[in-house]
Amino acid sequence: MSRVIRVALGQINPCLGDLRGNIKKIISYTKSAEQAGADIVAFPELAITGYPPEDLLLKQRFIEDNIAALAEVCCNTGDVIAVVGFVDRTEDIYNAAAVIHRGKIVHIYHKIFLPTYSVFDEDRYFKAGNLCPVFKAKDFSFGVNICEDIWYPEGPSYIQALAGAELIININASPFYYGKAEFRKKMLCTRAHDCSAAIAYVNIWGGQDELVFDGASMIVDAYGLTLNEAPRFQDHLLITDVDLDESYKKRLHDPRGRKRNAQNQERPLFIVDLDCKTGKTKHTLQPSKVCPDMVVEEEIYCALVTGTGDYIKKNRFKSVCLGLSGGVDSSLVAKIAVDAIGKDNVLGVFMPSQYTSIESRQDAYALAHNLGINIVEIPIMEIYDAYTGTLQPLFDKLKPDLTEENLQARIRGTLLMALSNKFGYLLLTTGNKSEMSVGYATLYGDMAGGFAVIKDVSKTMVYRICQWINRVEGRFVIPERVLTKAPTAELRENQKDSDSLPPYEELDMLIEAYIEQDRDVSEIGDIKIENIKRVISLIDRSEYKRRQSPPGVKITQRAFGRDRRYPITNGYNRD
Amino acid sequence: MSRVIRVALGQINPCLGDLRGNIKKIISYTKSAEQAGADIVAFPELAITGYPPEDLLLKQRFIEDNIAALAEVCCNTGDVIAVVGFVDRTEDIYNAAAVIHRGKIVHIYHKIFLPTYSVFDEDRYFKAGNLCPVFKAKDFSFGVNICEDIWYPEGPSYIQALAGAELIININASPFYYGKAEFRKKMLCTRAHDCSAAIAYVNIWGGQDELVFDGASMIVDAYGLTLNEAPRFQDHLLITDVDLDESYKKRLHDPRGRKRNAQNQERPLFIVDLDCKTGKTKHTLQPSKVCPDMVVEEEIYCALVTGTGDYIKKNRFKSVCLGLSGGVDSSLVAKIAVDAIGKDNVLGVFMPSQYTSIESRQDAYALAHNLGINIVEIPIMEIYDAYTGTLQPLFDKLKPDLTEENLQARIRGTLLMALSNKFGYLLLTTGNKSEMSVGYATLYGDMAGGFAVIKDVSKTMVYRICQWINRVEGRFVIPERVLTKAPTAELRENQKDSDSLPPYEELDMLIEAYIEQDRDVSEIGDIKIENIKRVISLIDRSEYKRRQSPPGVKITQRAFGRDRRYPITNGYNRD
Repeated sequence: MSRVIRVALGQINPCLGDLRGNIKKIISYTKSAEQAGADIVAFPELAITGYPPEDLLLKQRFIEDNIAALAEVCCNTGDVIAVVGFVDRTEDIYNAAAVIHRGKIVHIYHKIFLPTYSVFDEDRYFKAGNLCPVFKAKDFSFGVNICEDIWYPEGPSYIQALAGAELIININASPFYYGKAEFRKKMLCTRAHDCSAAIAYVNIWGGQDELVFDGASMIVDAYGLTLNEAPRFQDHLLITDVDLDESYKKRLHDPRGRKRNAQNQERPLFIVDLDCKTGKTKHTLQPSKVCPDMVVEEEIYCALVTGTGDYIKKNRFKSVCLGLSGGVDSSLVAKIAVDAIGKDNVLGVFMPSQYTSIESRQDAYALAHNLGINIVEIPIMEIYDAYTGTLQPLFDKLKPDLTEENLQARIRGTLLMALSNKFGYLLLTTGNKSEMSVGYATLYGDMAGGFAVIKDVSKTMVYRICQWINRVEGRFVIPERVLTKAPTAELRENQKDSDSLPPYEELDMLIEAYIEQDRDVSEIGDIKIENIKRVISLIDRSEYKRRQSPPGVKITQRAFGRDRRYPITNGYNRD
Repeated sequence: MSRVIRVALGQINPCLGDLRGNIKKIISYTKSAEQAGADIVAFPELAITGYPPEDLLLKQRFIEDNIAALAEVCCNTGDVIAVVGFVDRTEDIYNAAAVIHRGKIVHIYHKIFLPTYSVFDEDRYFKAGNLCPVFKAKDFSFGVNICEDIWYPEGPSYIQALAGAELIININASPFYYGKAEFRKKMLCTRAHDCSAAIAYVNIWGGQDELVFDGASMIVDAYGLTLNEAPRFQDHLLITDVDLDESYKKRLHDPRGRKRNAQNQERPLFIVDLDCKTGKTKHTLQPSKVCPDMVVEEEIYCALVTGTGDYIKKNRFKSVCLGLSGGVDSSLVAKIAVDAIGKDNVLGVFMPSQYTSIESRQDAYALAHNLGINIVEIPIMEIYDAYTGTLQPLFDKLKPDLTEENLQARIRGTLLMALSNKFGYLLLTTGNKSEMSVGYATLYGDMAGGFAVIKDVSKTMVYRICQWINRVEGRFVIPERVLTKAPTAELRENQKDSDSLPPYEELDMLIEAYIEQDRDVSEIGDIKIENIKRVISLIDRSEYKRRQSPPGVKITQRAFGRDRRYPITNGYNRD
């Protein structure tokens, strides 16, 4: 009597543009799904190309190649119904999902709601679809839609459900920021309940330039209860038996759907027939499971390791180097690098000057020891003297200022780049979001490098993550003193960050209010107005620096870069 | 009998975000228009805020301030009808044009077609309008719409014209690329003819980060003939008498409009009444004039001077410095800087190494002499020796390679930045598009600086512009030998650009095909396939460098940056 469908969700990590590599993963997971007795296997949004392809989408050849790659997937789906994200073309192009059955494309769904906000630019590339098909098989029906589509309560899921779909397959490339997974889960449960349909949500995982995807694929039943969850930030084929009679039962008990009429919807709907039914012979599944929630520090840390590791590996670097100052930022970045690509591939570089304290050296070496990475030492004094000597005729008797501090930072940047050039290391920069916000960083100095691992992590969060690491590992991986001493750039005698900046707790609160929430001076409470104005002015005036910073992992709801497109030349509130 | 309306177009250069400064310009031009007896004065798209405001549009306070600024304009329009671009808000925000008459806002038009391609992101910010009002005065009617709206043949201009508008006011913020003005003119003439209505096109001019606007405001009559044109790249109040009976006459002679029915259009149309009429007493106008077309070299040069000058001035720098190598790129950039901010505000810096030829020194000094700018000399050898000495224990017996070449470039970058830091110069970089495309440039070396003046100008165009300058000035401003000797980076003995790169003619042809036209290898003819593949691979692999380059003036149809959003991590066609 019961109609059980076995759904497999292929949570893969595509490499952007590597069509051959991506279909290899898709085909391999499809075979595993078939072997596991799945009726349907679904892959994420644009699984063939990776996400976001950006202006590769303006290349005709790229579109053709992606269609050829999909054709190859078609030949390898066996008996299972496969749902695969790709770029469709007719007289225009669409963000699309192919529904493949027995080697044939049964139908192609076109994404209806194209996000054009935050990091998204989909209206730049795609024409929007307007059909909401329902796939009708012998004894069950399902709908397919794509990512943003499910964020609209009146969207295709709803239309498909009212037209009879008991299962909605929603394929995604949904970028991570911390806290998002929790809300997404609530939304999916609500939608499933609203639709009286099970929802199978599949997402990519992995890093692509500044974006990280966390996977977190899941299946929710028609009551809005989580049936099964994939672990985050890893490859996973999530297989779940979904009893579609539960969707039917929900409709009997919760007849609110009857009050609505799918035919009244504006978007045309149509039915596609499939020649298959539930209930083939299957072996028993592992019991479904719900993954424990991650604490904020953990989810951010996983995102940083994933984003950094993928940037390194997908760009075919084998090893990285970074400056170790004995401070908290470089300590965290070193630890992330080690977890991303292994300790043998990480080189720490300690570059002392006359302002470097004994403690800084001890802490840098202690960290390197704790992580098991190599550390080399390159003093910068001789080079510094050569610069000041050469510049003496021009600088004459002018007294030292920021120029000389920046010089030290730039010597370090140049030395690190020399190591990168000579030995092929990717240079990681170690600046955090608090510094990047107010421009407390030197262009071509500490900002020099290929990847800015923690550029979207506030200083207070850097501390929290380090403390979390030490707690989880049960030892001081990050040396204790690194977490307790006052932060300093050590670019002049007795310098402290607090000489130039407000306390980091205050600064980070301001940054969150101004950057992430776009609040105005008058809407930020509890801080002296002069301090607020000074910080905002520093933030606005530092845009030119950020424009030249290397990419780094987005972990907040509003990262600098494509997520916050800000003019450099900006007369607003300047005086 | 004849109905003559005097139309004034305020071609202004707003500073982005400087609301007070912008309305000052608007009010001053409105007064001049009134004094000149104008019936209508129109200002460009988003004249109040400047264009594009980017994520400033996500700040509620910014929207409120712009509305308050518009209110101040309202109090200062006197008897003239003013059309002013601003951001409207209701329950959402719109790219809007206020029509102001006798101190009151008569109506607010909402832009219907929001561009979201190339450098545009308007769907990110605005809700689209859907009304096409016609303003009916005692004896004439006109329509107002915004920029992109006029690029659609079936768009609001057409609907407004069919509903009786004899004049269309189209307000713009239309970014420059070379060749665009010519096509825009054709399009406007065609639209006017199609609509049997005069079209008044007003555009901003000036630089905003990477964009330049060329003005080129103009009025076309209902027959598609140009009545009047503003000079490009400068402030101008273009005043023209338009005989609306000519629009009427055109409709009698060309009754094609009668075949169409505005009522059949999907977009709602409505009529707004205005209490004014044509034919007040007026003094005689200067005869209208049509500006001579600029040759390509001239329009690009004007764009470069405008974009560079505005970046410097709007960001409140007084002076610039740049490295002079004796080569063609730095020579052109120095000349642009001189024309942008005056010779006394430009410092040339000559930084010789052991590889610098006598000719390079002579040419750098000759150029400085020709331009009348100061030049200082800073040798880099001592600093270079300090670096190699310091790195010796690590580099040991490894032979010199790109590392040592980059070191020299980075020493120069660091020295220039030291001058910038110490004396407040904005550092201009001198790399051209050909180099930037294939990554023939050193990050934090010759790429270091605040503004990359010619980053969108190909090497062959750099030569053409220099030759044009010498021709126009009737003397060798750019020393003759600079234009004839083989290009070299002088980073090793007897180095020539041609050692590493194909001839620039070939390279630039490839770049145009691959970057601007997104052509595939197979679609680029007449060059050996290995050469094509090598160049494309260099272009793709250099994306990470471009991401860290300073902003520079967009002069082509496809500049790097927001105009070409390309992934760094990119497995497409990698092997």
